[in-house]
Amino acid sequence: MGLQISPLQQARAGYRPNLPKALRGGSIGVAFGAPTEPASDREEIRRLFPNTYGQPAVTLVAGDGLQAAPLKVGVVLSGGQAPGGHNVIAGVLDALKAAHPESRLFGFLKGPAGIIKGKGRELTPELVDAYRNTGGFDMIMSGRDKIEKPEELAACKKHFAEMGLDGLVIIGGDDSNTNAAVLAEYLKTEGCPTCVVGVPKTIDGDMKNEQIEASFGFDTAAKTYSELIGNIARDATSAVKYWHFVRLMGRAASHVTLECALQTHPNIALISEEAQARGTTLEQIVNYIVEVVVRRAEAGRNYGVVLVPEGLVEFISDFRVLIDEVSAILGADERYIHGLPDHSERLQYLNTRLTAESARVYGTLPRDIQEVLLRRDSHGNVPLSQVETERLLIDLVSDRIRLLQSRGQAEAVKFSALSHFFGYEGRCAAPSNFDADYTYSLGFAAAQLVRARLTGYTANVRNMTKPADEWVAGGTPVTMMLNLERRKGVLTPVIKKALVDLGGRPFTEFAERRDRWAIGDEYVFPGPIQYFGPSEVCDAPSITLALEKA
Amino acid sequence: MGLQISPLQQARAGYRPNLPKALRGGSIGVAFGAPTEPASDREEIRRLFPNTYGQPAVTLVAGDGLQAAPLKVGVVLSGGQAPGGHNVIAGVLDALKAAHPESRLFGFLKGPAGIIKGKGRELTPELVDAYRNTGGFDMIMSGRDKIEKPEELAACKKHFAEMGLDGLVIIGGDDSNTNAAVLAEYLKTEGCPTCVVGVPKTIDGDMKNEQIEASFGFDTAAKTYSELIGNIARDATSAVKYWHFVRLMGRAASHVTLECALQTHPNIALISEEAQARGTTLEQIVNYIVEVVVRRAEAGRNYGVVLVPEGLVEFISDFRVLIDEVSAILGADERYIHGLPDHSERLQYLNTRLTAESARVYGTLPRDIQEVLLRRDSHGNVPLSQVETERLLIDLVSDRIRLLQSRGQAEAVKFSALSHFFGYEGRCAAPSNFDADYTYSLGFAAAQLVRARLTGYTANVRNMTKPADEWVAGGTPVTMMLNLERRKGVLTPVIKKALVDLGGRPFTEFAERRDRWAIGDEYVFPGPIQYFGPSEVCDAPSITLALEKA
Repeated sequence: MGLQISPLQQARAGYRPNLPKALRGGSIGVAFGAPTEPASDREEIRRLFPNTYGQPAVTLVAGDGLQAAPLKVGVVLSGGQAPGGHNVIAGVLDALKAAHPESRLFGFLKGPAGIIKGKGRELTPELVDAYRNTGGFDMIMSGRDKIEKPEELAACKKHFAEMGLDGLVIIGGDDSNTNAAVLAEYLKTEGCPTCVVGVPKTIDGDMKNEQIEASFGFDTAAKTYSELIGNIARDATSAVKYWHFVRLMGRAASHVTLECALQTHPNIALISEEAQARGTTLEQIVNYIVEVVVRRAEAGRNYGVVLVPEGLVEFISDFRVLIDEVSAILGADERYIHGLPDHSERLQYLNTRLTAESARVYGTLPRDIQEVLLRRDSHGNVPLSQVETERLLIDLVSDRIRLLQSRGQAEAVKFSALSHFFGYEGRCAAPSNFDADYTYSLGFAAAQLVRARLTGYTANVRNMTKPADEWVAGGTPVTMMLNLERRKGVLTPVIKKALVDLGGRPFTEFAERRDRWAIGDEYVFPGPIQYFGPSEVCDAPSITLALEKA
Repeated sequence: MGLQISPLQQARAGYRPNLPKALRGGSIGVAFGAPTEPASDREEIRRLFPNTYGQPAVTLVAGDGLQAAPLKVGVVLSGGQAPGGHNVIAGVLDALKAAHPESRLFGFLKGPAGIIKGKGRELTPELVDAYRNTGGFDMIMSGRDKIEKPEELAACKKHFAEMGLDGLVIIGGDDSNTNAAVLAEYLKTEGCPTCVVGVPKTIDGDMKNEQIEASFGFDTAAKTYSELIGNIARDATSAVKYWHFVRLMGRAASHVTLECALQTHPNIALISEEAQARGTTLEQIVNYIVEVVVRRAEAGRNYGVVLVPEGLVEFISDFRVLIDEVSAILGADERYIHGLPDHSERLQYLNTRLTAESARVYGTLPRDIQEVLLRRDSHGNVPLSQVETERLLIDLVSDRIRLLQSRGQAEAVKFSALSHFFGYEGRCAAPSNFDADYTYSLGFAAAQLVRARLTGYTANVRNMTKPADEWVAGGTPVTMMLNLERRKGVLTPVIKKALVDLGGRPFTEFAERRDRWAIGDEYVFPGPIQYFGPSEVCDAPSITLALEKA
């Protein structure tokens, strides 16, 4: 039992991911579409990206091949882990080596900071082989830095020139792909020949659009959480005495929660985008949960499952207002407030400064949440990830039920609740067959874009609800996906985050069924991800993707 | 998307569990061993079980068959959920139907209380088919009641007589199997012909002995937790900035934590039995963790994984003493203490009553834990399951590191910790191939014991590290496994819980390697349970069982 790998890892090490048909042959070419432009803010984006604006979308096709030259390419992982990152790297390497055996791949360590510092190592076939089809980003690790400042951009150019780098593949989410476009534009302006290509990664599933069907990792992470939620639902119907409140990763978007709901049919799934669209208040959310708890109790069911997206509180209207007011007050008087001798003095002071409505909301919160709202992280933001929303809701729902029962109402209810948070449990899971194939294909495609000397593109794979035989790979100019948003007070070009579309089929299918799921026991138990069984078990895409493409 | 089952459930519904060879033919017989007796307290146990003491162990053999008569049998699930419970029931039903198609099976609802109240329903093949190879106990649910009082025993006898019940199969842990023996003895004394047979269930893995190699559910639950721990370890080595503290179910015994450690090689795994044997104090545990954190930081590794068994605090010597002292104080003055106006007054009062050492320990605890220790559940016990030991340790370790750093020590350490608790995530997982086969075999064997008119037995299956072909099924007289223990002040016959044996191979293999695991990154990533792949991936028994039988 020295340095060892598990039997499953051993068996999966030999898995050969499926590629789109066009990428399988010895010769691969590029078909150019019409020039592209962003959906909005065209002039500003053209001004910011004069050398990479308006490039055509491209599709990779069989035959009519790209030149077979030895290339030097770098790769970097940026941001939070997502299942399949190692397979992107394996795809890049295999594509480069297939094109020319003397091609070499370098991995920058610990994210974009590794590029700036020029810290990396060569990724040899022997090294990469040990990571095929595994989860995690541990091959080269990741980081959350951005390449933004002039001296950072210049450092990259210098390292690339010294290394003689033909291309850089940046594996990351919306911000990292935007950063890829910024770097591509800079390098082109500076006459540096290194091409920059992005790969769409995030378990949150919020980097997608008409060109990009899904961000990688979403499939595996959501299925891992769904396994656990299904197990918990089965426990609920077996023990018949607990309400389980499950918080799930996904701060800006609720795709993960929605996918898990479609997979498991919980009694309640809260969707941040809906709360925001409706201007829902904290009290309304509590009332909705209490109503379901009471109705289920009256049907003899004092148990259930509630899914809560991590970012929910930011989208609850009165909570949002409260956060903004507290931030403004802290901005002015943080030192005074934290200098007050105890929490009750702070509470007293805040009540003199908050609006009546916010003072009321703040007063309804449990003390630990009150305290979190007075903290600020190193960026000056409320550390909302420290708000254990599932525990907050349990607390508030319990209080409400006790109140009702003190009035002789809701007598059928016995409310005993347990909390769970699933995030780290799935971010580094080994990729599902879908994600293993998808990420390998993305890496393989990214290498072709570099071979074609294309820069400022995000690799894509489309038609993914069909068998891999029918998948189509290509590249989308990043500028096409940009719009301007105000970030820290400055209009900034960013890829628009894809939030849950309340008119889209994943949400409407959920919304049509949720009342039945609320009261009945219609739980579905997806079980653990399978790699070797029947195709309908092992290869199905996420329900979200299936419904979006149906 | 109405009432639906997942693709995996559909695929697993058709799985036909393996049986020991002797149980596969049309004719099954019983081979009797020598009379048995318990390891200790023989006279007292003989006195308590005059009619069922000393029965022989039995082995089920092929041929030389039991009579083919139609039987009526009842089944009940007792205690916490464990993967495979439904397969025990399927095994009982299939065995009864194979022996005689007119045999019938009844399920008592919500545990032993269902027997006392006579609440149940017939378990037809159509009904049972919907639950084959599924997790959970939702077919008939479970409960934690015992059949003890004279009126409860009498109620059982009455119901059994009315139903004409030939046998009852009690699926439960050590206490439930003891209860099976009590009921068997009572019924025999009363001349009631209903046989009672137990089946060894518990994810904690603490019902095992020379006759019973494992309790069912342990394999699946530990593998499910190991999947998650492996994913988290991968996240730790990828993000390289978090310490993950993972609490695992298992109150009396640490088998689950030990198995998960053997599966995943975490940096630290605390074992309650070792803490008890060594008289370890809370401070020593904190110091041990801090030492590993510092050594890893000095090696550039400010991340790691710590496994903590749920029951740990009960086995920490000074914490145990503190709990006992607080209990004694509360026993006398609970009303006074809870009438004090606030926590600081309670703290003041406790300091006047606790011994100096306990007052010191109590004073070192975070306030929420101090408060939990002043609560009592409906049985008058400290609700220790409310002690989030993983959070307690994070709190104490952080404090210690801050202290060291204020003295200019441990400067390499950046300690950022996250907590997890895994219990409900695995109790109702669908059974692994091992547990699916084992539980089906146990049910099949239990039905044969009833057919043989044996009562006061626990069904068993042995030789389980071999392929199912070589498994041997039989029955162990419960009286053979009993000893006397003081429960609530009264000497009571109970099955001795199997704690982690500090001289046994699972622990010694762990202890030999843990120093290397502490500092290196030797994590293993077991991945999700697989049902359809290579046998070494899908069918391996737990490492604990493999090492115990090696």
